Amino acid sequence: MSAADLLAKWNACGYYRLVGMTVVHADAASSELRITIRDEHLQAYGSAHGGIVAGLVDAAMGLAVLGGIAAEEGCATIQMTTNFTAPATPGPLTAIGRTLHPGRRIVVASAEARGADGRLVAVGQGTFQRFPLGASA
Amino acid sequence: MSAADLLAKWNACGYYRLVGMTVVHADAASSELRITIRDEHLQAYGSAHGGIVAGLVDAAMGLAVLGGIAAEEGCATIQMTTNFTAPATPGPLTAIGRTLHPGRRIVVASAEARGADGRLVAVGQGTFQRFPLGASA
Amino acid sequence: MSAADLLAKWNACGYYRLVGMTVVHADAASSELRITIRDEHLQAYGSAHGGIVAGLVDAAMGLAVLGGIAAEEGCATIQMTTNFTAPATPGPLTAIGRTLHPGRRIVVASAEARGADGRLVAVGQGTFQRFPLGASA
Amino acid sequence: MSAADLLAKWNACGYYRLVGMTVVHADAASSELRITIRDEHLQAYGSAHGGIVAGLVDAAMGLAVLGGIAAEEGCATIQMTTNFTAPATPGPLTAIGRTLHPGRRIVVASAEARGADGRLVAVGQGTFQRFPLGASA
Repeated sequence: MSAADLLAKWNACGYYRLVGMTVVHADAASSELRITIRDEHLQAYGSAHGGIVAGLVDAAMGLAVLGGIAAEEGCATIQMTTNFTAPATPGPLTAIGRTLHPGRRIVVASAEARGADGRLVAVGQGTFQRFPLGASA
Repeated sequence: MSAADLLAKWNACGYYRLVGMTVVHADAASSELRITIRDEHLQAYGSAHGGIVAGLVDAAMGLAVLGGIAAEEGCATIQMTTNFTAPATPGPLTAIGRTLHPGRRIVVASAEARGADGRLVAVGQGTFQRFPLGASA
Repeated sequence: MSAADLLAKWNACGYYRLVGMTVVHADAASSELRITIRDEHLQAYGSAHGGIVAGLVDAAMGLAVLGGIAAEEGCATIQMTTNFTAPATPGPLTAIGRTLHPGRRIVVASAEARGADGRLVAVGQGTFQRFPLGASA
Repeated sequence: MSAADLLAKWNACGYYRLVGMTVVHADAASSELRITIRDEHLQAYGSAHGGIVAGLVDAAMGLAVLGGIAAEEGCATIQMTTNFTAPATPGPLTAIGRTLHPGRRIVVASAEARGADGRLVAVGQGTFQRFPLGASA
């Protein structure tokens, strides 16, 4: 699968379309994902629900992992940790994912999400399992 | 705020309605939340995106925390960890949240999410900060 | 390896002897480990360093995992999260570990550490990888 | 407290002396800690116990936090996550800590631990609470 095909595949999936999240690029060095926080993403206090922010962080890490492994492989999030450092208020939110440890079976990645003003909104660290795409998906 | 008002407030927020998540109950002992996984929640491999599962786990922990503090207080997720133990395939998914440590400022909670067959789909542990509702929301 | 041999093997290792930590039992249901916090475990503020508490929590989870898999297998901590809920002051500290998800390759466990008065000192959640003992150790 | 006093205070505490861990520097930009893995740090499989590695990662994050706040303040680890990416075999192990989010009450930090050959052994992310030193220690 080419890099363009990878992006197209993910941008077309149900979750990305439901929440309006887009992967902008993904390669062996990093990934970049974007979402614009709107009313439909908010919890009862007026900022984006943790699920939206954690989903963006998860996706940024996962796409960074996918950008660094073979096209015939997929990856599954085994575990992820997210620190929420500021409320994700309505407006653009961008996440950059990076692979920290490209293991043969387990890959460790991190991601940062920032608002339009550059303020850090969340930072995550995650554990991903590689699998052959033919077998599991 | 009564327990019924708490549930109504959260069930009416944008995120819960966007993803179709419902809080069934929340008190000092535990919380219960439900979602039915559908196509719109899926990632590219055919199971629910991590954001949906993490959002459910976050909400179950947060509502358990809210069920155990004063009605004039809110809580914010500072940090959460989720282990994904099985794919969340289409169908019902239920999460039970519990408070592990009811601190005066920091509360620690956990949650488990299970499919209709009882299979464990995810387990989380999180760190929540209490705040007076008048001040921040 | 019998359960008694498993305990003897771990209680004899360098780290357990250095810090004075003991595994009391470990089976498929749970594990129990003990340490008595002394001056040599303290950080600069007078309670046990995070490394001592995290090490106890890691060990309680790891022994619970080992208690539930074949004697010819080992396990390695891939990732662990610890919430520190109260200072671990000098005196006895006991941790109970439990397996949450006994996967074929990845096992998820949790542990709680409590002081002599029953107060919760720490709670952890961890991700463990199983491996055949002959191959890796 | 001067930076030199801060280092001296921590290097003199019981835990650092028990395990042979040293803080080399700590300022607002980063911290550096060192330990030489020896037999007394090992678990039953021949590499350093998770408690030693997690303790080093915790300390690197904590000293980075302390290097960036006022001398009259302390910090406590509320929560930490560690990914173990390679066995910590006997020999030098160095950790670099960095502050990711210098909040007024809650600070988020990360740390990486590497062996003498530069191999990544562990990476952590942690949540720290600031407190006035006169009040709590």
